[in-house]
Amino acid sequence: MMSKPSIPKGTRDFSPEEVSKRNYIFETLRKEFQLFGFLPIETPSMEKLSTLTGKYGDEGDQLLFKILKRGAKFNHAVQSAQSQSDVSDHFFSEEALRYDLTVPFARYVVQHQNEIHFPFKRYQIQPVWRADRPQRGRYREFYQCDIDVIGTKSLNAEIELIQIIKNVFIKLQLPNHTIQINNRKILHALIDSCGEAENFEKIAVVIDKLDKVGRENVLNELNEKFNNPTCTELFTSIFNLSSDVRETISWLEEIIGDAKLGNEGIQEIKYITNACDQLDINNLKLNLTLARGLNYYTGSIFEVILNDYNMGSVVGGGRYDNLTSQFGLNDISGVGISFGAERIFDVLNESHLFPSDTTISPEYLIIDRSGNMINSMRMANKLREYSKRVMIYPNSDHKLKKQLKYANQNNIPFIVFVGEEFKEEMTFELKNMLTGDQNILKLSQFLSDLYE
Amino acid sequence: MMSKPSIPKGTRDFSPEEVSKRNYIFETLRKEFQLFGFLPIETPSMEKLSTLTGKYGDEGDQLLFKILKRGAKFNHAVQSAQSQSDVSDHFFSEEALRYDLTVPFARYVVQHQNEIHFPFKRYQIQPVWRADRPQRGRYREFYQCDIDVIGTKSLNAEIELIQIIKNVFIKLQLPNHTIQINNRKILHALIDSCGEAENFEKIAVVIDKLDKVGRENVLNELNEKFNNPTCTELFTSIFNLSSDVRETISWLEEIIGDAKLGNEGIQEIKYITNACDQLDINNLKLNLTLARGLNYYTGSIFEVILNDYNMGSVVGGGRYDNLTSQFGLNDISGVGISFGAERIFDVLNESHLFPSDTTISPEYLIIDRSGNMINSMRMANKLREYSKRVMIYPNSDHKLKKQLKYANQNNIPFIVFVGEEFKEEMTFELKNMLTGDQNILKLSQFLSDLYE
Repeated sequence: MMSKPSIPKGTRDFSPEEVSKRNYIFETLRKEFQLFGFLPIETPSMEKLSTLTGKYGDEGDQLLFKILKRGAKFNHAVQSAQSQSDVSDHFFSEEALRYDLTVPFARYVVQHQNEIHFPFKRYQIQPVWRADRPQRGRYREFYQCDIDVIGTKSLNAEIELIQIIKNVFIKLQLPNHTIQINNRKILHALIDSCGEAENFEKIAVVIDKLDKVGRENVLNELNEKFNNPTCTELFTSIFNLSSDVRETISWLEEIIGDAKLGNEGIQEIKYITNACDQLDINNLKLNLTLARGLNYYTGSIFEVILNDYNMGSVVGGGRYDNLTSQFGLNDISGVGISFGAERIFDVLNESHLFPSDTTISPEYLIIDRSGNMINSMRMANKLREYSKRVMIYPNSDHKLKKQLKYANQNNIPFIVFVGEEFKEEMTFELKNMLTGDQNILKLSQFLSDLYE
Repeated sequence: MMSKPSIPKGTRDFSPEEVSKRNYIFETLRKEFQLFGFLPIETPSMEKLSTLTGKYGDEGDQLLFKILKRGAKFNHAVQSAQSQSDVSDHFFSEEALRYDLTVPFARYVVQHQNEIHFPFKRYQIQPVWRADRPQRGRYREFYQCDIDVIGTKSLNAEIELIQIIKNVFIKLQLPNHTIQINNRKILHALIDSCGEAENFEKIAVVIDKLDKVGRENVLNELNEKFNNPTCTELFTSIFNLSSDVRETISWLEEIIGDAKLGNEGIQEIKYITNACDQLDINNLKLNLTLARGLNYYTGSIFEVILNDYNMGSVVGGGRYDNLTSQFGLNDISGVGISFGAERIFDVLNESHLFPSDTTISPEYLIIDRSGNMINSMRMANKLREYSKRVMIYPNSDHKLKKQLKYANQNNIPFIVFVGEEFKEEMTFELKNMLTGDQNILKLSQFLSDLYE
């Protein structure tokens, strides 16, 4: 016997129930994005390697799924490989599956700059692929749900993103979340202030681990790596700051308020937090240790955590001033966030927060007992005219018990028995699978009741 | 200066307008599929090569997009390549992007056979990839929209597929279409009857070209290739049959009615055409020259053409008795069809048949003239509570002319001016961009009008 077929490591099949639940998340996001004037775009699954490489760091480059050359190009690559000692995989590939939605979006904006009217607000809900080691909650094919406002430096874009986050999580019944905000300009000014400007990225990486390793370990690592007491002291103070935004801002003004970049960052944070106060958004938290991994952020950065779940951030993003420059278009600032649909799915699923009407099982199973399937098909079509989801059990010769069991197995709540009397009297029997109630009904009456 | 970025040959970016139009097609299909009790599944973009190869013929195998091995596996492949003279691309790849949705579905059914209750009705709307030479209307990444009923031999499944086709094209405003049907059993019996059983596939390929090359050329090719006067005569008679189903069936009964397979095929066609008559489906046409390219079909086969457009079939499909056997599960018959979304898109677009409300541009653009963006944000949130799509122009310091132009460029029909009086008097000015009308309105009155 053949062994059971299987799928590539880190990928998943989605059952009808899972697809429906995932669509509930996507649909909730989509609706909210549209209310704020965002428009959908889609980009190809594959991009040219030249578009992707060098944008995600060395590690990211290694995680790209590359497409193998075909035909003559493949043969040529093999010949080259046979004549050389050091063979890179670039010989064998010119294209790769997209790694995220932000770089393809930047590419899209530059490529279509003459068709786009800025500011451009786009959303994009599509899969991305990363050849990461699969583990719980981490897949090689997964969806990202991104919104970006590009072509304006206005901080009102940031405020809208914050509003959207709050609205989305309220609609998903996850009101207990915290929107963490920081600003790369502040982070730069702070690290400048202790004379470590050239180590910005490295220090950012260390402090970004705070949640995982704790204060002690971060301070020890800073000490070991940079051996700069002012720097260690600075972050000790930061860790001991109260959670009060005003106090933190006063402290920042004292430390970096005179530096141009620092002052800009402080003004930005002030504008955003002040607006959020006025809009009754009270779950925004200034977190000076928030750094974000990606190097292209230049201003505001965001992360959202669910307070009742220990699973890292479910949204991340920030402002980038120079992303499109990499494709030749300068001076286009943008800001965006990405919702992590997979983590949100896990939370909603574990906590049974998916609405009960998410799945789209048929509402009626028709069992034909009239001896002529046409009667059942006519009955089904009547119900479908009223937008009911109807399935006809196709084999009327199967035992009744088997047909009823099928309804149970597929969570179909009502059975319609279409018998011989259907054709002349237009009556049928309706069985409620939950209560077991069974009644003979007149079609016309039943349909007019449905309409109400 | 950098050259403009671009995307791989045969792939496409989709603008907001295109995404919305495509979603209209997908949504129309999805709704209809659900009314008939079909449930959604999704499978990974990549499948193991062992799942895909050998299922689509040699030509299909060559059109697979294969994923390049990574890391140690890649290095090992290079070493192997360097030590051998004849290097196949199988050295370099274990996975490929899916080529269609039917083979992954068969794999899914076998892999998840213990979770599935048969008959299983699934729909699947996902992209597929083929490294075909790109040309007008043919892309390397395109969507397929499939429905299949698997786990029943009942012909009622065929009848439901026919009903769905008719309903979908009526809803898409393409009522003028023809559903062509044939049966592989009849085709087999006919070719048997002239002693060419062993050339079935080859003859099927020749007659499948009828639409493209015409009767004369098909008959000449049959003559040349098989040199069998009975065969040529048979197809001459077939080409001269009237379009009347009853007459065609009488003719078939005479020619192949005594052959077991032929008789089965005739009974199947009779059952299906008879039911469709009773269900007032009058665009079904028995076409004995319909053959379909794929070898796995064993019973009914379908194609749909749009009578007013010269562009080949927009739906294709058929019944397959042994597809899951290839993955080790026998005796599971299925029948399915695939809607060609790309061709349907082209037709609807050329004929301006997309509804005008398909695109989801913002309905209101708020222009802030109050000097405090918070007022505009509050106004926007009020409208969003009434499910209105609202965008705030983020830079209130831009010239009014520029802001108005932005509304025009983005097809936003209404402008809301939020001025200083908004905060105290809760009034604003509404401009209709189409008529030019401009009125001062009270927010409370305006919102209660919206509600009606």
